[in-house]
Amino acid sequence: MPKQDNKLSRRKFIKSSILASAGVGASIQTGLTYAQAPAPDDFLTIDPWTKIQRQGQPNLTYGLPTKFEKNVVRDPYGNGSKTPLQKLHGIITPNGLHFERHHGGIPEINPDLHRLVIHGLVDRPLIFTMDDIVRFPSVSQINFLECSGNTWAELKKRTWATVQETHGLLSCCEWTGVRLSTLLQEAGVKPEAKWVLAEGADSAAMTRSIPIQKALDDAIVAYGQNGEMLRAEQGYPLRLFLPGFEGNMSIKWLRRLKLGTEAWQTREETSAYTDLGADGKALQFTFLMGVKSVITTPSAVMKLKGKGFYEISGIAWTGSGKIRRVEVSVNGGKSWNEAILQAPILDKCLTKFSMAWNWNGEEAVLMSRAYDSNGEVQPSLESVIKARSSNAFYHNNAIQPWVVASNGEVSNGR
Amino acid sequence: MPKQDNKLSRRKFIKSSILASAGVGASIQTGLTYAQAPAPDDFLTIDPWTKIQRQGQPNLTYGLPTKFEKNVVRDPYGNGSKTPLQKLHGIITPNGLHFERHHGGIPEINPDLHRLVIHGLVDRPLIFTMDDIVRFPSVSQINFLECSGNTWAELKKRTWATVQETHGLLSCCEWTGVRLSTLLQEAGVKPEAKWVLAEGADSAAMTRSIPIQKALDDAIVAYGQNGEMLRAEQGYPLRLFLPGFEGNMSIKWLRRLKLGTEAWQTREETSAYTDLGADGKALQFTFLMGVKSVITTPSAVMKLKGKGFYEISGIAWTGSGKIRRVEVSVNGGKSWNEAILQAPILDKCLTKFSMAWNWNGEEAVLMSRAYDSNGEVQPSLESVIKARSSNAFYHNNAIQPWVVASNGEVSNGR
Repeated sequence: MPKQDNKLSRRKFIKSSILASAGVGASIQTGLTYAQAPAPDDFLTIDPWTKIQRQGQPNLTYGLPTKFEKNVVRDPYGNGSKTPLQKLHGIITPNGLHFERHHGGIPEINPDLHRLVIHGLVDRPLIFTMDDIVRFPSVSQINFLECSGNTWAELKKRTWATVQETHGLLSCCEWTGVRLSTLLQEAGVKPEAKWVLAEGADSAAMTRSIPIQKALDDAIVAYGQNGEMLRAEQGYPLRLFLPGFEGNMSIKWLRRLKLGTEAWQTREETSAYTDLGADGKALQFTFLMGVKSVITTPSAVMKLKGKGFYEISGIAWTGSGKIRRVEVSVNGGKSWNEAILQAPILDKCLTKFSMAWNWNGEEAVLMSRAYDSNGEVQPSLESVIKARSSNAFYHNNAIQPWVVASNGEVSNGR
Repeated sequence: MPKQDNKLSRRKFIKSSILASAGVGASIQTGLTYAQAPAPDDFLTIDPWTKIQRQGQPNLTYGLPTKFEKNVVRDPYGNGSKTPLQKLHGIITPNGLHFERHHGGIPEINPDLHRLVIHGLVDRPLIFTMDDIVRFPSVSQINFLECSGNTWAELKKRTWATVQETHGLLSCCEWTGVRLSTLLQEAGVKPEAKWVLAEGADSAAMTRSIPIQKALDDAIVAYGQNGEMLRAEQGYPLRLFLPGFEGNMSIKWLRRLKLGTEAWQTREETSAYTDLGADGKALQFTFLMGVKSVITTPSAVMKLKGKGFYEISGIAWTGSGKIRRVEVSVNGGKSWNEAILQAPILDKCLTKFSMAWNWNGEEAVLMSRAYDSNGEVQPSLESVIKARSSNAFYHNNAIQPWVVASNGEVSNGR
């Protein structure tokens, strides 16, 4: 086994993979030891489950997770629930685990009865049925969705334990629908229209004002989520989806779009979803989600099984475009190492990052810091706090520390 | 409404979108008429479901589809089930709808008891627990999986009605796991090892021989599927995944990998999963899935609601790399038009394509033809049949025709 640095050389690791690809038996690189002794060269025992003849058993027409994964669930939180990021892999969130945040519960809408109205400053006010909507040219795009209140309590003090609690108001799916620009073209946008009011059919009649530029850019009126129709809790049968904007603006159960000249200053963009800046004045509007990342493995409250090789991995995202770079620190930010970004790196989408790490068994503080295509860098918690008033609540995109104690226990290092 | 060609000009459509983006009210381009009259400028009625106060209702910790989508299900078929492609959007298949094909049913495996053995021509035979496996550097990739028997019956005669029946042994997910090359590197591959035997823990102990080149290229030992752990029917807790290869080689419930000098000529690569060529000799081996595409909307047994605008859309894929181009014909192959490919276009992954179409109300025969990065073109059914013996069963990647009758009914045009 070669001598290893504290941070295992990824280049060396990859070089060895190439040797292995050439059919050359390379030396062990991870230095992992396994729970069991090396296998006998002949392995002829049969597992007990292999002996059970299950041919012909009925299949479920809609499949569900195995009972062994029954603890991989959303964590109910207020009028919503959080995604178990610490138990997920890759960038796609399965629909059953997409986070929720409701303002008036989940309406039950028969899609045959649902209508979308477009009116206000348009040439032709229109009503669409769902049958109308799905006939239009469609687009599909993999985008993250994050509640602007994600990680809020950590602004004040260390509050939560796991990454599900601190960062779980975040998910990422493939969304399918019609470009909002396509529907607005059908209605004909009057030149003086600068804002679009979007209204949901929930009992809160959730409403937000959307700038016309966003409506005509990459906004979609979505009916599909990871291939199938939207889940009820994600706005079935129709939602607005605004890539990169704070989650509550992607109005669920979308029933009405009204074009006007000014923002409407609705309840949910004045008394809620607005922070005060350090000068005490409202930071209106804060649509874009900032560049952010978090390490999901290892994260609290995992426990490392002794020193040796680990892969540090996590997710990064930004409302402004693409992730360009992620750095990882194992010493609380004293020094940073470049992480590997996993392809594909998509616009306004989670990007998976990883870094090989050889833990020496001493206390370590793990952090990640993301950079985006707009030149933004994920800030420290101190600088986020400094830019706001003491009542700040939303848009905490600060660097998240996880402390690895010498006994392997991982905890929130806020 | 402008005069429209039979094939609606996409360029004109896009140009008008740009006009709309500039705030200019463009004329209606799709020519669609809606089920209801244009909306009143003031739309103040409240939907009945909006009046139901649902604040505080319990959320499901693992969400399920709404009752209104209860017919979007897999279609049980022999020892498996088929994906409802005609009801899906985009490229991701939700885990609950991933197709199945089992050779000995679905074993129920406690992940704590599962082991993976690597032995044969290696320096160090090894046994891994699941805890061991997940500590290795991981990769995630979005890849299609297709059964080599997909579309088989259509080789003989028109057999099935819907695209779920003809093409539903096809799905696409984000798979996460460890590169097989990483595990083989741990064991140390002896220079004389040219093949890997992969064995499943199902009651069939399904086995296939894998060329060492593929094992050291993009093969992964997968535990994750669309973010969560594998579904039981997809090999929980561990499967081999060989991007672009015929589905049955991606051995589920993977328990053993043995390295050797020759292919093992197992039952499932001799008596099954091998076709005869036109000369009567076995075409062994036919690992790669050919370049293929199919229109999913419109497809049998949908019914078009009168002439006018439709978006023709579908999916294309190839085991050899990326989709470069898809053409669509509306006249049974007399002429072809370039379809629009939806980004991202990923390696060995479904690619969504679409083409705007203005149906004139006369009988039409819709076809799609895909081209891949390896220079391959999706063949006609005639050429697929010509290259095989009369017992051919697997690898039917022929062009699929759908007939639109003048009354709008769509049927299988095989």
